[in-house]
Amino acid sequence: MKTIHVTFSKRSPKKAKSGYPIHISGQERDWLRPLKSLGIGRCLILTSPRVARYCLPELRRNLAKLKIRNQALMISDGERFKNLVTVGKAYSALVQAGIERSTPVLLLGGGVIGDLGGFVAATILRGVPFVQIGTTLVAQVDSSIGGKLGIDLPEGKNLAGVFGQPRAVFSHVPYLKTLPEREVIGGLAEVLKYGIIGDPSLFQLLRKEREKILKRDTKLLFEIVRCSSAMKASVVGQDEKESSLRMTLNFGHTFGHAIERLTHYRKYLHGEAVGIGMTIAARLSHEMGFCSKKDAEEIETGVRALGLPTKPPSFAPSEWTRALEVDKKSRDGMIHFVFAKGIGQVTIVPTRPATLVKEFLK
Amino acid sequence: MKTIHVTFSKRSPKKAKSGYPIHISGQERDWLRPLKSLGIGRCLILTSPRVARYCLPELRRNLAKLKIRNQALMISDGERFKNLVTVGKAYSALVQAGIERSTPVLLLGGGVIGDLGGFVAATILRGVPFVQIGTTLVAQVDSSIGGKLGIDLPEGKNLAGVFGQPRAVFSHVPYLKTLPEREVIGGLAEVLKYGIIGDPSLFQLLRKEREKILKRDTKLLFEIVRCSSAMKASVVGQDEKESSLRMTLNFGHTFGHAIERLTHYRKYLHGEAVGIGMTIAARLSHEMGFCSKKDAEEIETGVRALGLPTKPPSFAPSEWTRALEVDKKSRDGMIHFVFAKGIGQVTIVPTRPATLVKEFLK
Repeated sequence: MKTIHVTFSKRSPKKAKSGYPIHISGQERDWLRPLKSLGIGRCLILTSPRVARYCLPELRRNLAKLKIRNQALMISDGERFKNLVTVGKAYSALVQAGIERSTPVLLLGGGVIGDLGGFVAATILRGVPFVQIGTTLVAQVDSSIGGKLGIDLPEGKNLAGVFGQPRAVFSHVPYLKTLPEREVIGGLAEVLKYGIIGDPSLFQLLRKEREKILKRDTKLLFEIVRCSSAMKASVVGQDEKESSLRMTLNFGHTFGHAIERLTHYRKYLHGEAVGIGMTIAARLSHEMGFCSKKDAEEIETGVRALGLPTKPPSFAPSEWTRALEVDKKSRDGMIHFVFAKGIGQVTIVPTRPATLVKEFLK
Repeated sequence: MKTIHVTFSKRSPKKAKSGYPIHISGQERDWLRPLKSLGIGRCLILTSPRVARYCLPELRRNLAKLKIRNQALMISDGERFKNLVTVGKAYSALVQAGIERSTPVLLLGGGVIGDLGGFVAATILRGVPFVQIGTTLVAQVDSSIGGKLGIDLPEGKNLAGVFGQPRAVFSHVPYLKTLPEREVIGGLAEVLKYGIIGDPSLFQLLRKEREKILKRDTKLLFEIVRCSSAMKASVVGQDEKESSLRMTLNFGHTFGHAIERLTHYRKYLHGEAVGIGMTIAARLSHEMGFCSKKDAEEIETGVRALGLPTKPPSFAPSEWTRALEVDKKSRDGMIHFVFAKGIGQVTIVPTRPATLVKEFLK
């Protein structure tokens, strides 16, 4: 059991809600203390049928021990349901379950439940308290921390949403044992990213211990979730609303999102698209003079060694450019592109999408 | 020309965005200085075809004078379009117009454009700057101020949304000359409400000057918008997120919303439902011992004198109770009901919906 605190350095320390805890647990009895510290008598749980089958019973056993009344509501899971239609269904389910402004919503699931459910919680009745309980590796190492909530639009991924901080984050590592291998590997893409942007030892750990990780060694998974959570908590604590530092977390994501968009969110898992995106970003970093050829190759090898794809799908230059242009972070048509300077350091440089595509396709 | 500032008393004064101006203008040349002070080079305008016909040319003439590039995007207006479907259309229109995080959105229209468009602006790309330009009396005296943004759900009005503050509010009084009389009368319901909750002289002004107001006397309309804006600015400045004082603004709205819900938002304008709601609230205030019979009658007379309806539609007790129960402000099943203590003073008392319905129908 380990608790890491997200502390917002720019907020007034007097402000009651100036941060929140991330509870990383390794066994069932670890739930009780942090669940109790929420101080709630009733809650609603937003989850999906698939997640509920594996993960709901353990959560409910613990809620029952603490006599916290609860009701689970099912929504559709998967990137292609991360849209306004699912938001509407979730709103209606919560209203029909009698939600009030003080009713906490527990979000039990992966990135889609956390992002979409968080957006729903942050906007229903203009905002109710919510708790992120990530059940996938992507959720535990990345999406459940930092308060980016939202949905996809037909024009692109995560184009609508809000920043909204949870009351607490629970990462119960044993949940990861229920995941298909492909999803674990997808999640490792984000962990590798933390290694590249700021933690060389984490990068090396993934290279060395890949086999044991895929066999779900609890200690190693715990270590990975802990290191990743610490990194993400530190970055978002310093830059809650992504004005600068937080943009480094987008390493590999500019092209990753474009690939997901071009393949209609069906061909690749998010982490797989990010794997390809990191490979492209590494090559561009070298081509455009930000890192050595060796570093770029080491990143590519790191991606491939995890079992992630590295080869980009084939599209026309104009398609790539258009897909890059709907990036949320563009300003005056420039994208804040994250280049690697080596393993453990990155830099952000505003760059034209067309320039990136030209360099990448040459 | 008059500028009133909304200042959030609980926010740190050091915070750059701790408030915003409300510019009330009486003639076309009044636009230029405050428009210029926005310091923008480009903007997108969300409006509806009906509003655009009457109000867009004057706005664009002024934007042109200041060389502010702009593009107008049309969305559907009217309470029955204040839903997720329209939100989705507005998102797509903005993305297709090339919105970036720094692009300001001007919301030109009445309450629906302001509430829904504000929600869209506050959530697209996780939030872009926006400016409220109310073109109806309801918008200028009420909905454009205070940062309550959102949409209706099938289960009830304004059940989803966020709190989000505009960069500025523009209330151009001559726009009110284009309104149908029924809409002006609907807007006066909110003005009368300000009189009841805290400004007896405003209450009397409406009684005395009704005829001149309906003839759109510019000076009187300006006075009404100014007094109402000052009242709303003061209340929301002290209680941005509706923890206590701001709830007084709901006088007449608990039953008003229930009436709109029970009649499917088709039979009454919002202000008309609030007129009936204020009459019910006045009667309950007397019946339950909060004000004299004379005060209750004076409120009812005030509502009727404006040409607003006072007679509630007929529904079964269980229908009333159910319609009241989806109130956003309920807590443990209790509604924070606003009772009048006289003309110019109200009090908030948590009350069971069933109790209210029983008293009201007896």
